[in-house]
This record gives sequence, C-alpha cells and structure tokens, in this order.
Amino acid sequence: MIPEATIRRLSIYLRCLRYSLAQGEYIVQSMDIARKCRVSSSLMRKDLSYFGGFGIKGRGYDTKKLIEAIERIIGIHIKIKLIIVGMGNLGRALIRHLKEISYFKIIGAFDRDERKVGGKIEDVEVFHESRLPSFLRERKPEIALLAIPPESLQEVVNLLGEGEIKGILSFALSPVKIPVGVEISFVEIASEIEYLSYKINKRGREK
Amino acid sequence: MIPEATIRRLSIYLRCLRYSLAQGEYIVQSMDIARKCRVSSSLMRKDLSYFGGFGIKGRGYDTKKLIEAIERIIGIHIKIKLIIVGMGNLGRALIRHLKEISYFKIIGAFDRDERKVGGKIEDVEVFHESRLPSFLRERKPEIALLAIPPESLQEVVNLLGEGEIKGILSFALSPVKIPVGVEISFVEIASEIEYLSYKINKRGREK
Repeated sequence: MIPEATIRRLSIYLRCLRYSLAQGEYIVQSMDIARKCRVSSSLMRKDLSYFGGFGIKGRGYDTKKLIEAIERIIGIHIKIKLIIVGMGNLGRALIRHLKEISYFKIIGAFDRDERKVGGKIEDVEVFHESRLPSFLRERKPEIALLAIPPESLQEVVNLLGEGEIKGILSFALSPVKIPVGVEISFVEIASEIEYLSYKINKRGREK
Repeated sequence: MIPEATIRRLSIYLRCLRYSLAQGEYIVQSMDIARKCRVSSSLMRKDLSYFGGFGIKGRGYDTKKLIEAIERIIGIHIKIKLIIVGMGNLGRALIRHLKEISYFKIIGAFDRDERKVGGKIEDVEVFHESRLPSFLRERKPEIALLAIPPESLQEVVNLLGEGEIKGILSFALSPVKIPVGVEISFVEIASEIEYLSYKINKRGREK
C-alpha cells in the first residue's frame, strides 16, 4: 500500500523536475530536487523506491527519464479526457485554466441552465446536464470536474453514475453517495482557507 | 500534536453539521454525522476528543453548539480578511465564489497588469501588485490567495514578505522560499486531477 502522501508528492516532484529540465539540468541529484520541493532527500528517495529504483548510485537521476517514469506512474503519459459540469464562474475559469495543460483534454462542458447550453467556451461545447449519461457512454471521459453548488452534488453524481465515469473531482463539499467503482476527491477552496486559518490560530496560541 | 487529517476533517464535519442544522436536526448523534461525512463514528469521536468533549453521553451533540465550537477551533468565529493576487480567470472566479461565504471578507485584489488596476470586481477594488507591502501594513489581511502563474510565485511571495501576511494559499505549485512565520498551502487543480488519475490507473492494474 503506497501512502496517499507519497502519491501527492509525486505531482510536486514532477513540477520540480520539469522546472529543472527547463533550466537545462539534464542530470539531477536527489538532494537538489528534494531541496526545491522542500522535502528531505531521504523522503524523496523513499517515495521513489515504492515504484522501483530510478537513480544511478552516485550519479543522480536522468531528469527526462525520471519525469517520464513519474508521468507513467500517475497515468498522464496519455491524455486524460475530462468533462466539466457547472458553467458558473468557477467552471468557466477551470476550462480556461486547464486547457493550457497539454496532458488534459476537456471534451465537454455541462450545465442545467438552458441559456448556457449550445455555445462554446474556448472551443469546448456546452451541453445540457441531462445529456450526461449518453455523452459518457459515447465519448468515455475519465474524470468529471464538478463546479456546482453543494445542493446539486448528489443529483449530478447520480447522473454520472448512470453513464460511466472513473473519477470525480468535486469543488463542492457535501455528504454524497458515490456509485460503486468511482473514485472521488474534493477540492473545496473554503476548507483549504479554513485549514490555513487553523494553523495561523494555533501559532498565535503557541506564542 | 493534532494530525493534519483531523484538522481537515473538521471542515468536513462542519459542512455536514450545517447541513443537518438546515434540515432542522438540533441534536445529532455522532453516528449520523459520521455516516453523512463518510467516516467511522469512532474516528469522528477521536477527532473531536483532541479539542475536549462536546457530546453528552447517550444524548448526542447539540448541533449548533458543536458548529460554534468547531468554528472557534478553526478560527472562523470571526471574519477572516483575505486578499487575492492575480486577476486572471481563476482570480476573478475566486472573488465571485468566496464573496458568498459569510466568514470571509475579501478586502483587496491585486494584479501586475496596469489595465486591470483601478476597477472593481464585485465591490473588491483592484490595486497594482507593487502596492502589496503598504496595503498589508495598513489593512492587515490574514491570508493571501495567489492565482498567478508559477513563474511569478517567488516574486509575489517576496512582496508579501515585505509587508506582513500570516498565510498564503497558492494555486500555483512551484519551488518557493517562504518568509519565516508564514504558513503556506497549495491547491493545484492539475495535481488533484493527477492524484485521481493515479487512483484510477491503480484500480485498472489491480483488476
């Protein structure tokens, strides 16, 4: 069982490695990457050891090969097909934000408001929410991003369950029943701010 | 030392409790809340025990009191003053998204593009980035949200360090040096999708 924290750090290593590669560092030492990523080099080596050895003892890592290996572990060596549900401010911002990332492909957007349906946002067609089950069966997106109010979460998750989706990333945090076989993660910006607030408060109390 | 995961679950409990309160449940059993939040009730009781006991044995929790207690622990019983740096799609969406939440107050927005400076977005004034240090000293926001490209992260963090900020929530993931005494968290949407992708891939391999 690989710890969740290890998997999450892989994304960070990937960004640090791409940064190094962009700077022309074709060979990197674990110490340098670890420092850039603000983890200890022993932790980084431990994280990578779960997936087999990549480094050559005393000679560091081949930056490009390590990037490719991590991309393969994460599964982004092939493009991931995404859909986005909810074309409010956040949903539209997500389309514009994610279309810049080469290994994501947004293949459709959805909303329940007829006035938003039919147009395109940055080349992504906006469909009515009721089209979700048939769209999923035909186009087989892997991950759905939900930029919807928490009150609609269960309803949209049910629609996604009628079709077939492998993963859901919800920007709304609310109690929800998930169809069997579907992975769900939550990114709720308010709770991230709350977490920071707790850490700041705690620091204040410790003084 | 309270585990990070416990703190993060507090935000989830809070949402489930507010949901229950909105449904008219003035007394809640830990079992019900735990089920709504998809954690075991023993885990929930353990999480709450770090902060002293709230429940009355056999009679459940007073929903409103438990909400207030958690809000106090997190530090959102008073409004948190926020600023947002970067008025691209994501930054503008953040203003619209967060202004709905009563315990946040966005007191200023910042960008380095002169053309974006001077106007207002949803009643929030947009200032030039160079104003950050003086703004921080005068208005004392607690947390800065950074919706900027990763290349600008260090520069903006340095500007924030010149003033005084307690916490930074960055939507850009990049190696960065943080001023002493500042808490930083990252929410990078791409790496959240990568994490889901890994879990989906792993499941595929296990079949």
